[in-house]
This record gives sequence, C-alpha cells and structure tokens, in this order.
Amino acid sequence: MILIKYLEFQTSIGGVVDVTEGVSEAVRESGLVNGAAIIFVPGVTGAVTTIEFEPGLVEDIKKALERLAPIDIDYAHDQRWGDGNGYSHIRASLLGPSLSIPFLERELMLGTWQQIVFLEMDNRPRTRKIVVQLVGEGA
Amino acid sequence: MILIKYLEFQTSIGGVVDVTEGVSEAVRESGLVNGAAIIFVPGVTGAVTTIEFEPGLVEDIKKALERLAPIDIDYAHDQRWGDGNGYSHIRASLLGPSLSIPFLERELMLGTWQQIVFLEMDNRPRTRKIVVQLVGEGA
Amino acid sequence: MILIKYLEFQTSIGGVVDVTEGVSEAVRESGLVNGAAIIFVPGVTGAVTTIEFEPGLVEDIKKALERLAPIDIDYAHDQRWGDGNGYSHIRASLLGPSLSIPFLERELMLGTWQQIVFLEMDNRPRTRKIVVQLVGEGA
Repeated sequence: MILIKYLEFQTSIGGVVDVTEGVSEAVRESGLVNGAAIIFVPGVTGAVTTIEFEPGLVEDIKKALERLAPIDIDYAHDQRWGDGNGYSHIRASLLGPSLSIPFLERELMLGTWQQIVFLEMDNRPRTRKIVVQLVGEGA
Repeated sequence: MILIKYLEFQTSIGGVVDVTEGVSEAVRESGLVNGAAIIFVPGVTGAVTTIEFEPGLVEDIKKALERLAPIDIDYAHDQRWGDGNGYSHIRASLLGPSLSIPFLERELMLGTWQQIVFLEMDNRPRTRKIVVQLVGEGA
Repeated sequence: MILIKYLEFQTSIGGVVDVTEGVSEAVRESGLVNGAAIIFVPGVTGAVTTIEFEPGLVEDIKKALERLAPIDIDYAHDQRWGDGNGYSHIRASLLGPSLSIPFLERELMLGTWQQIVFLEMDNRPRTRKIVVQLVGEGA
C-alpha cells in the first residue's frame, strides 16, 4: 500500500526544521504497520537529512554548508539569472532531496538522538511543502 | 508491483546528463499510478541528484565537485592502480548512487525547476546504463 | 512483502566496513526475487554509501571526510556537550543515513567494483546494528 502525506511549514533563511514528529504522525495515522517512509523535497534549494537536533549542531551544520558552497564566491547561476542563490542550489544538490527511513510496528526506526530535518538553503524565507510517501503493509 | 527499466546514454568527461524525461517515460509506460522511482547508478564513478538544469548551475556544480575532491591532489587509489581517477571515486561516494522520487497519478512529484541528473565523474567518456526501479500500484 | 534484517558488527575509529555480503545474504535468505534493499543507519555518527573497497580508496575517503569536516576546528556541539565528536555528527549528516539498492533475480544490482560500506565517523569504536529493509515480491 502506498500513501502520500504533505508536511507544510514556514522557514527562515538558513533554517533547520525538525520534521520528525510530522513524519511519525504520518506513519501512525496511515494504519500501516511495517514499511518505509520516503521523505522528498520537491524543490532545488532545500534538502533533508538526519541530525541530533540540538542548537550546537544546528550552528555547526550551517558552518559546514558554508564551507561546502560559500555564499560570497562567484556562481555562474547568479550571473545568468541574478537570483543570488547559486550557493543554495549547489548545497541542495550536493546533499540530495530524498531520504528513506524504515518503520516497524508503526514506529520509525530512528536512533535515540536521531531527528529528521529539512534544511532551508534558499536566500529568503519560504513556505515549504515536502512529501512523505509511505510504502508499507497493514495489520 | 516492481518494475525495472534501464536508461542508457553516452557521457563526456564531467558531463551532467538530464535523465528526467527518461525516468518520467519509465513511469508513464509502466502502467503504475502511484509509487516511488528509485534511480540507481550501478557503478562507483558517477552519481545522481536533482538540480535546476541550466548552464550556469551545470558549471557551478562542476566547480563544487572540484572543491570537494580536487583532481590534482594525491590519491592513494592512483598510486596503487594508476587509473588517475581517485577523485572520481571520492566524488561519487560522497554524493551517493541512489535517489528515491515519489510519483502520483503517473507523474513524478518534482518541483517546477527540478530535474534529475546523472553526474559523470570518471576521467574518460563512458557508456552508462543506470537503473530505474518502480515500486508502485496500478489503477 | 516487507522484511527487516539487522547487520551487527564492531567498528574502529574511522573504520570503513564492507557490508555487501551481509546485504546480499539478507536478499538471498528472504525468498524475495525482485525488489529494493534500503540500508539505514539508526544513528547520527555513521553513514552508508558505495565505494570500490580497496585500501587506497579507504584511505582517500578518510582524507575527504577530514576535508569536509576537520577534526580540529571548533564545533558548537563540543562546547555544549563536551563529546568531542562534533565532526562525526557533521560528516554523518552531510553523507546521509540511507541508501536504496535494487535487486533483481535475488541479486543486488551493484556494479562490478561497487561495494556497500558503513563509514564509522564517531570518535570511539562502536558496536553498530544497521537496518536492511527489503521491499519486494516473491517467486
């Protein structure tokens, strides 16, 4: 059985959004017992990953993204389109838009300190609507 | 239901190949209505991700990969095997070989500007055959 | 049909563990013929990817991770928690905890030189138990 749910939220520039509860809720409400949750970003300036969601690491991941694709270097994208978000695109493409997480007995199989996060990489606040797809079997 | 399709194409060194239409066609021809497409690279010197496929970003992603694993530093792989493509392997392993994209009503759930791309990282042109696996349900 | 298997192993600091045989065995023992294997790390200081598993590249990937998130820079995580493994978390979040690999006729669709590896990024040896989830159909 395959189900789709959307998670919608507002972001800030550089925001790291904990979506673990939203994904967990999608699993519990689905009626599915075992399966996989595919979390997918339908966009090219944001990404999903897992992290221990605490303020220190939120700060550290922002610095890591800045090392990966610095804001203040030249991007051909910006010269062509003037969006100023070349760095956003590159960060998002390097991290990737999808994540697959198994669930068992209606619970995501995350580690104790592991949260699912959306990383806002665009150069302006956005309203995001990401996809949670559940592929699984019922009781 | 689970189906496999292959996409085959020629690459150039550093080539970024838009495979979106190939994956979309695989979905449409499958007869499946809802499901997930797993795009998988059976190889270790190429990767898949999504990007806004325009010439500026194609140039920018190449520069980003060069920062991530520069061509002209020493690689133990090259010292052992003399292939000269240590950088190719490292780039591919850091980006990863797989991507999962949901589809709904026979359409990939991509964002407006989001294309699926294969990144050729090897140090010579290749004939690539990547896997599109569809896990889904029919009408 | 959906099945779960765990792979359990000891790691060393910076260890790169070839789990290909464990995943292949999970597929063969499952009775499933076609499907996808989702390899998932329930933790935030390790990751999975594919690589040509030879000593040169094992050395090269360690150096690449050190460039990505150096051990000896400051991490806010370490200042708050004193774990000393801020770099571990950042590396793991950038690479990601999941990988999806199709299998066909009971065989993983890997390239000739492609192995599945777990990357230990924590600052101490660990006992790891990673998840292999198989979504597939039988004979």
